[in-house]
Amino acid sequence: MDFLSDNAAGVHPAVLAALAQAAPACADAYDADPWSRRLEAIVSDLFGRPARVFPVPTGTAANALALAACVPPWGGVVAHTHAHVERDEAGALGFFGHGASLLLVPGAHGKLAIPELDAALARRRADVHQVQPAALTLTNATEAGTTYAPDEVRALARWGHARGLRVHLDGARLANAIVHHGARPADMVAEVDLLSLGCVKTGGMTAEAVVVFAPDLAATLPVRRKRAGLMPSKGRLMAAQILGLLESGAWLETARRANAGAQALADALPAKRRLHPVEANMVFAHLEAHEKAALRAAGFRFHDWEVDGPAAARFVVRWDQEDSAIEALARRFRALP
Amino acid sequence: MDFLSDNAAGVHPAVLAALAQAAPACADAYDADPWSRRLEAIVSDLFGRPARVFPVPTGTAANALALAACVPPWGGVVAHTHAHVERDEAGALGFFGHGASLLLVPGAHGKLAIPELDAALARRRADVHQVQPAALTLTNATEAGTTYAPDEVRALARWGHARGLRVHLDGARLANAIVHHGARPADMVAEVDLLSLGCVKTGGMTAEAVVVFAPDLAATLPVRRKRAGLMPSKGRLMAAQILGLLESGAWLETARRANAGAQALADALPAKRRLHPVEANMVFAHLEAHEKAALRAAGFRFHDWEVDGPAAARFVVRWDQEDSAIEALARRFRALP
Amino acid sequence: MDFLSDNAAGVHPAVLAALAQAAPACADAYDADPWSRRLEAIVSDLFGRPARVFPVPTGTAANALALAACVPPWGGVVAHTHAHVERDEAGALGFFGHGASLLLVPGAHGKLAIPELDAALARRRADVHQVQPAALTLTNATEAGTTYAPDEVRALARWGHARGLRVHLDGARLANAIVHHGARPADMVAEVDLLSLGCVKTGGMTAEAVVVFAPDLAATLPVRRKRAGLMPSKGRLMAAQILGLLESGAWLETARRANAGAQALADALPAKRRLHPVEANMVFAHLEAHEKAALRAAGFRFHDWEVDGPAAARFVVRWDQEDSAIEALARRFRALP
Amino acid sequence: MDFLSDNAAGVHPAVLAALAQAAPACADAYDADPWSRRLEAIVSDLFGRPARVFPVPTGTAANALALAACVPPWGGVVAHTHAHVERDEAGALGFFGHGASLLLVPGAHGKLAIPELDAALARRRADVHQVQPAALTLTNATEAGTTYAPDEVRALARWGHARGLRVHLDGARLANAIVHHGARPADMVAEVDLLSLGCVKTGGMTAEAVVVFAPDLAATLPVRRKRAGLMPSKGRLMAAQILGLLESGAWLETARRANAGAQALADALPAKRRLHPVEANMVFAHLEAHEKAALRAAGFRFHDWEVDGPAAARFVVRWDQEDSAIEALARRFRALP
Repeated sequence: MDFLSDNAAGVHPAVLAALAQAAPACADAYDADPWSRRLEAIVSDLFGRPARVFPVPTGTAANALALAACVPPWGGVVAHTHAHVERDEAGALGFFGHGASLLLVPGAHGKLAIPELDAALARRRADVHQVQPAALTLTNATEAGTTYAPDEVRALARWGHARGLRVHLDGARLANAIVHHGARPADMVAEVDLLSLGCVKTGGMTAEAVVVFAPDLAATLPVRRKRAGLMPSKGRLMAAQILGLLESGAWLETARRANAGAQALADALPAKRRLHPVEANMVFAHLEAHEKAALRAAGFRFHDWEVDGPAAARFVVRWDQEDSAIEALARRFRALP
Repeated sequence: MDFLSDNAAGVHPAVLAALAQAAPACADAYDADPWSRRLEAIVSDLFGRPARVFPVPTGTAANALALAACVPPWGGVVAHTHAHVERDEAGALGFFGHGASLLLVPGAHGKLAIPELDAALARRRADVHQVQPAALTLTNATEAGTTYAPDEVRALARWGHARGLRVHLDGARLANAIVHHGARPADMVAEVDLLSLGCVKTGGMTAEAVVVFAPDLAATLPVRRKRAGLMPSKGRLMAAQILGLLESGAWLETARRANAGAQALADALPAKRRLHPVEANMVFAHLEAHEKAALRAAGFRFHDWEVDGPAAARFVVRWDQEDSAIEALARRFRALP
Repeated sequence: MDFLSDNAAGVHPAVLAALAQAAPACADAYDADPWSRRLEAIVSDLFGRPARVFPVPTGTAANALALAACVPPWGGVVAHTHAHVERDEAGALGFFGHGASLLLVPGAHGKLAIPELDAALARRRADVHQVQPAALTLTNATEAGTTYAPDEVRALARWGHARGLRVHLDGARLANAIVHHGARPADMVAEVDLLSLGCVKTGGMTAEAVVVFAPDLAATLPVRRKRAGLMPSKGRLMAAQILGLLESGAWLETARRANAGAQALADALPAKRRLHPVEANMVFAHLEAHEKAALRAAGFRFHDWEVDGPAAARFVVRWDQEDSAIEALARRFRALP
Repeated sequence: MDFLSDNAAGVHPAVLAALAQAAPACADAYDADPWSRRLEAIVSDLFGRPARVFPVPTGTAANALALAACVPPWGGVVAHTHAHVERDEAGALGFFGHGASLLLVPGAHGKLAIPELDAALARRRADVHQVQPAALTLTNATEAGTTYAPDEVRALARWGHARGLRVHLDGARLANAIVHHGARPADMVAEVDLLSLGCVKTGGMTAEAVVVFAPDLAATLPVRRKRAGLMPSKGRLMAAQILGLLESGAWLETARRANAGAQALADALPAKRRLHPVEANMVFAHLEAHEKAALRAAGFRFHDWEVDGPAAARFVVRWDQEDSAIEALARRFRALP
């Protein structure tokens, strides 16, 4: 009964079907194929704006490539203290960005808020000696399993733009945020400059995508992607994976299912045990060491969650999580004092 | 009738079959899955030495990641003037290697030879002011469609090791070289420290691999790969692609077919038109501008090949090239004066 | 009446005298000269341990070069939130360290303390996904004008070494800390691996130095320094500047004078106005906007100090500060409510 | 009798005099001082165009900083195969330029010529896979002791600009080229975008300068310089060194003297022994191993010169070379068969 990560999930059949269709073709290499073109059309349509789309194999690659296009090597990216770019990407921004820095700002439940952003910027000077903020990155759904509503994204994007920052959204779990808010995808990224479009956690295989809405930011992405070894020769097979998810609707359907599972767990967990509101497919629980041990002994797998302290645990519901596992864990949760 | 590149080829059914088998599973992320372990076992067995195997999406990533593990940022990689790392990777070594340099050495028919290597090194000094050679990279089959025999690889590797260089082999078309020489894979890389194992051109999809034989060189590769956004969460789907090719034997079978097609073209081409010996799946022909134009008008696609001068053309035979296209082109070649 | 920075100070005559002596010589370039050798001997003697010494033109270069030698590109440097490396070096660590990161830890009065360091490390994981701490950097005197006593440095160095971190000391104002504690220089850096030895603020001209006590860390410094354009051909003129300060005793004499001036200001400032203990040559005062304006109107120059809030001001006493300026400012301070 | 390098020379008294004048001052740090401003005025006047001037401690720093401002990390700098940037800067361009590459072009006697430049570019493609040339760097006087006349510089600059390349001149020995041609400095750099202005070899101490004529290229230089640890706090002491040389006329006077010494040696050397025309302060001689040994035994110091083959030797005349040493070496040269 594995609640470690949505990264452990299976691949949705729609992805395999799309691959099977694209695989036998002889097609021009390096994105000069019909699938890659169709992907740009579909994504532009989905988000209601003309977009350039660059498939990449990982979320780390998507985030780092996107942010490197926004900031010079001596620039900074304003990010939440617990963002994936800070905690789970091995310093990839420093690599892709040639030494560009994260400027970390705390915020409750994994979310950035304008008062704390203002305070952080007030402590900085605008001169040649200090790293200058050049971009803002949001994560939706956040690493704490919470979400920003469309209006919140918009407000933060405007805050950033007003200060000359480019605005990036890490959408590794964007589908989960969309279904939580019942929002249109276009509203979810309305004033965002570029997006890491998450597919792998929501049924995909080995393709995520950088989606660029701001035309000027797309200029250097092809060569950055090539030079980073992220431009596949048979690009149609990357595009097809994402097309399979989006065109079939599986992208949101899987997210809906995973969110529902997490909600069932949240409902079972005593309120005082809940560390964060449950708005996506993750539940963060306060559990003492012996309680964690008992769960593990009973066959449940999950991560300790250091940033929330030694008694924190994270349970992630996959899109293909067995109902029986969710029910078994919920029973355990209900039995907690 | 497309002779542009083996990158345009289809995916071998064995790859799709392997993917279909691995796709539905729930498996630990980040290479902690059974497929990734099996891949290391199979590759170690294939090459006759214990190896670490790191799947990556492109040959550029494989080469740059491998070479970056061999040289410090201030070091140099000795390479052929026309090597893929120099001409087709957008300076990826400089990126992955934090400014590491290529030290280019010419050689007939795309091959490095010891006299020219000796001469190049004799012109360098060993001091803090000059980039110091730290690695040697060979390509087999070469960018000129020629190959090194096992003894040649061994001699060059020994030359490099004797000078303190780590030895890398770019095997984007290693399968083609293996079948040309009828050699065992193990003999083809016998004294090499690390290998870019090519799969995509020979029936694969979006997975190549860095294969590390020298244990010390494997130490930094996991974090380098992660930080470069090249470590997929669902790693089993990368491993499975390669397993599909290797376990089915498709890897060599496709190369054999492609080589045979190129040989047929070579036999048809007047000897004085052949720019390089044809030992893999590529034919380089001397064609005047009007001859190129006539071929293109007749529906043949191929690349001009600048490094061999304005009258050079490259024809690549894919593993799934239609016999009719090969025959049609051969007829044209035979008709050339 | 300029209290902006000790960077605005004059050059001590002992430095000019040393330059005049070294200038006319014909001497081997690139540190192969007698002055460079003597500098290593003198510094080794001063700090009681064999040391390699690499003069560089700025403190930023010294810190970044030293830290880059301690951490891999994917590693992290534990530093105080307000350290110079974070706030005043334009991300130089990211540049010299090829994307290496700072891991910031807060602490009262500019000082790192073990409980906060422990807490910060407890929130991190040791895996390939997260930047791993590889070095600890201390600043003495700190950016808040406080100091670590020799025992404090020792305890922090041991804390770091016990966790596998290399320990660096940013000694831009080391002389000020030494004279404050009446300590021997050797005791001040007893368990430190490498030191940025500050000279410019305490009477020097355009030479600071990286001092390396840990022999293994010195291995890559010559080529790192050369490649960064920091290895002067006429190296004797860099060495001579530092020799002039150290051999004459001016290095500490100037610090003593500057500290005394700051102490006089501190004594004049109402206790409730003092933001930090005054242990070096800097006074941080709580001043309302109209009070700052009045001082500036009266001809006093000083910096606002954002990290301590909008009502903070920093006054730095130079080694060559005019007594009259100190007295005039002290009079103003005494008149504050 | 030391003919190793002009780097071994003494410092001209005019430099020390300027330092002595600037040293005692209290002046705003980081180039906000009157000396730094005067330097920009003087240099702009000298070269007949408004210029930004950034003093740096070494020629390596000047070249790398200047070129990094011209090319993106994935770009290339066209340079002579034997240029200092290739052979004596430890890959500094790769460091400052975040992996930017040199594109090397051969040419007789250390000089680039348009036919060979054209040929080199004809072998390259303009696509995302290949490093794209973005700058051209010339060296005057060259590493072979030859020079470009003003018209030659102009023609090469126009060639570069016509191809979208920024044009940089490495002027480590620009003074020697100027006096050789009896040209006005302004004519020597008439269509150049930015210049590494050499001072150290011609009487300076530890200051060279990046001189930027193209306003757009100056935009990122302040932060690049700061981040590289090359922006001295007491900047007036760097500016003063250069002012001392330029305002006194010593800059050209020293070059004139050094060139004359080299000419005397060239006249003494049998014509068949001369490897390159002698147009600056360096003589390259064909000498057999026993002849080199005899000279060294007689107390002459000089470098072997690998790029010109095993029998090549380089003799550099310093601005303060003793007449007796020149005469002694000339006698030896005259005695050669």
